[in-house]
Amino acid sequence: MRNVMEATRIASLGPEQCRQLLATQAVGRLGFVSGGVPDVLPVNYVLDGDAVVFATSPGSKLWGAARSPVAFEVDFVDVATRSGWSVVVHGLAQEITDADGESLRRRLAALPLAPWPGGHRHHLVRIPTFSVTGRCVGLPVMPWTAMRP
Amino acid sequence: MRNVMEATRIASLGPEQCRQLLATQAVGRLGFVSGGVPDVLPVNYVLDGDAVVFATSPGSKLWGAARSPVAFEVDFVDVATRSGWSVVVHGLAQEITDADGESLRRRLAALPLAPWPGGHRHHLVRIPTFSVTGRCVGLPVMPWTAMRP
Repeated sequence: MRNVMEATRIASLGPEQCRQLLATQAVGRLGFVSGGVPDVLPVNYVLDGDAVVFATSPGSKLWGAARSPVAFEVDFVDVATRSGWSVVVHGLAQEITDADGESLRRRLAALPLAPWPGGHRHHLVRIPTFSVTGRCVGLPVMPWTAMRP
Repeated sequence: MRNVMEATRIASLGPEQCRQLLATQAVGRLGFVSGGVPDVLPVNYVLDGDAVVFATSPGSKLWGAARSPVAFEVDFVDVATRSGWSVVVHGLAQEITDADGESLRRRLAALPLAPWPGGHRHHLVRIPTFSVTGRCVGLPVMPWTAMRP
């Protein structure tokens, strides 16, 4: 597939570009299926290597997404120049429990993850990356151009 | 349900606030199921009354979401104050075809919808609103406070 599609302003991003861009944002949108229909909710996150990590509380909608296939989307939009990029991670969301190794639990507990809503959101969900894809739209004046091969 | 949940920085938004906030943005994220798993893609949109309208092209991923239940999420995030809001529309995405009434087709054709990617995205998809929900997180210094009842 060609990286830049002619006659459009859209281009696909490589895996390494996607990983770099994932690390630039604080909030992403989790896509999951709830009650048989798609749902999307924003959540603040950090990365554990390539995996996305967020916190939630039992009984919440986000909690219902654990142990399920999910999509996690991160983007940047500039309305003035009608430009932007988006990266989508697909993976299986996994609740972190005592059954997980202590080294993993310690590593995740040390991440700088402070859920914006506050309250009791001490349960961590981790999304190991099954695939990561991305694309950018617009003029070649955005940060991603510097990351093109 | 209480509008403001104590011990957290999160509050729910009423339907009218949600509709007003939906009209403030240019890009939202469509959540849908593709190949049996959730997916999320950003798309620029306009409103037709309460319905979300976007353009796509046959064969695209977004095109595959037509005739399916979808979630459409719009948000605003301010990292500096760890604040923001999000609104989620649930509905059944419907491809607009010749079978639709001429008055609807004319009305949609007149909407100021110019897909950022360019190219041939002449097929319209409309999401009549089945439900709209929203929430805000953070300090009461954001636009939505002025819209609180």
